Amino acid sequence: MEKLYEGKAKIVYKAQDPDKVVIYFKDEATAFNAQKKDVIEGKGVINNKISSIFFQILEKHGIPTHFVKQLSDREMLAYKTQIIPVEVVVRNLATGSIVKRLGIPEKTPFNPPLIEFYLKNDQLGDPIICYEHILALNLANDQEIKTIKELAFKVNQILKDILIKHDIILVDFKLEFGKKEDGNIVVADEISPDTCRFWDAKTGERMDKDRFRLNLGDLAKFYEEVLRRIENEKD
Amino acid sequence: MEKLYEGKAKIVYKAQDPDKVVIYFKDEATAFNAQKKDVIEGKGVINNKISSIFFQILEKHGIPTHFVKQLSDREMLAYKTQIIPVEVVVRNLATGSIVKRLGIPEKTPFNPPLIEFYLKNDQLGDPIICYEHILALNLANDQEIKTIKELAFKVNQILKDILIKHDIILVDFKLEFGKKEDGNIVVADEISPDTCRFWDAKTGERMDKDRFRLNLGDLAKFYEEVLRRIENEKD
Repeated sequence: MEKLYEGKAKIVYKAQDPDKVVIYFKDEATAFNAQKKDVIEGKGVINNKISSIFFQILEKHGIPTHFVKQLSDREMLAYKTQIIPVEVVVRNLATGSIVKRLGIPEKTPFNPPLIEFYLKNDQLGDPIICYEHILALNLANDQEIKTIKELAFKVNQILKDILIKHDIILVDFKLEFGKKEDGNIVVADEISPDTCRFWDAKTGERMDKDRFRLNLGDLAKFYEEVLRRIENEKD
Repeated sequence: MEKLYEGKAKIVYKAQDPDKVVIYFKDEATAFNAQKKDVIEGKGVINNKISSIFFQILEKHGIPTHFVKQLSDREMLAYKTQIIPVEVVVRNLATGSIVKRLGIPEKTPFNPPLIEFYLKNDQLGDPIICYEHILALNLANDQEIKTIKELAFKVNQILKDILIKHDIILVDFKLEFGKKEDGNIVVADEISPDTCRFWDAKTGERMDKDRFRLNLGDLAKFYEEVLRRIENEKD
């Protein structure tokens, strides 16, 4: 297959169908703008499965995504999109960068959830940007930003409600959006413990990439546990 | 006089009138979150004069400000306000932090001008924030943010038009807003070469605090030159 793009955790290949791509999930884990790196065996397989389930759940709830189907353990078939270079973060509880950056106490709840935008640019370290920068840099227009915000809040509500049934708190997550060839904006990239913060509602245990960032160990075990809890939700 | 607050470049004292304060302009210059410090003789006097002129110009154009009158070389009488802890930056041309942070080429024009918000918090290094953070942190409500944005854009247009007549390009500037006891939001703090970037339209020479930041020297001389050019505009 012809490689179109290789990122830190995934490779995108051309699919037979010209309006689709094959996304291959790697085992590479990176954090702190790729300053910390490792390979975690099996991570790609788990993230492909979890992502596929979340995309199916979202589609079932009327959220447009790039997901077509899971092809194999590490491969997902998706619609080809032009990725909007804005990482969209939704936060339900304060943790991580926002605690340090703005001095907000750990675990402060956001009501309504807080949405943030980051410029997807590794060289610049994905700096935070605002609505005004998105317009000034021509990354999206006003209507597209409105659509993105609306979809991000809906995704948050849908996933939060489903996860809490399985004793998982959706603390925050990052979405990427892509524009399909027909111009429609869809949720793209992946939705996995690499891109979300999941806390066990009973034990408080972290079930996400913070295990890697904070050297807590057992990453694959906790990713597997997330998968085990949500596995039947796609049906 | 009873001291109410001392900042890096000014001291605020109680005035006789309980709804007013006396602002005293110091000669201290600081940059890079006060990591670089110096005393520049006469700076306070010039900034008080320039600020007073700008506030009078703004008032003449219908912009509410905290300005009452200039009391002496270093003292300004102003309405007492509760400062909204958000620094509002308006940029006409890209320079300084935004060039580094977002990789925007130096001197890129912003059409419309770009507005940015920074949390006024020295300990945190005045981090950039967005509309959503202002609401989440309860710094101002939606209507207040709208008022602040509107005023900031108007101030930009008024000052830009006047300065260019005197061969000064208004590159960018920082405003602070305060809430008066009657609840009205007014432009507060100061408007001076300490808080604006002024470029000589003919020579490109910097006529602002960048002379201090970048060790270009002759700060007082260039501040005086700004004052000399705008002096008659208040009438």
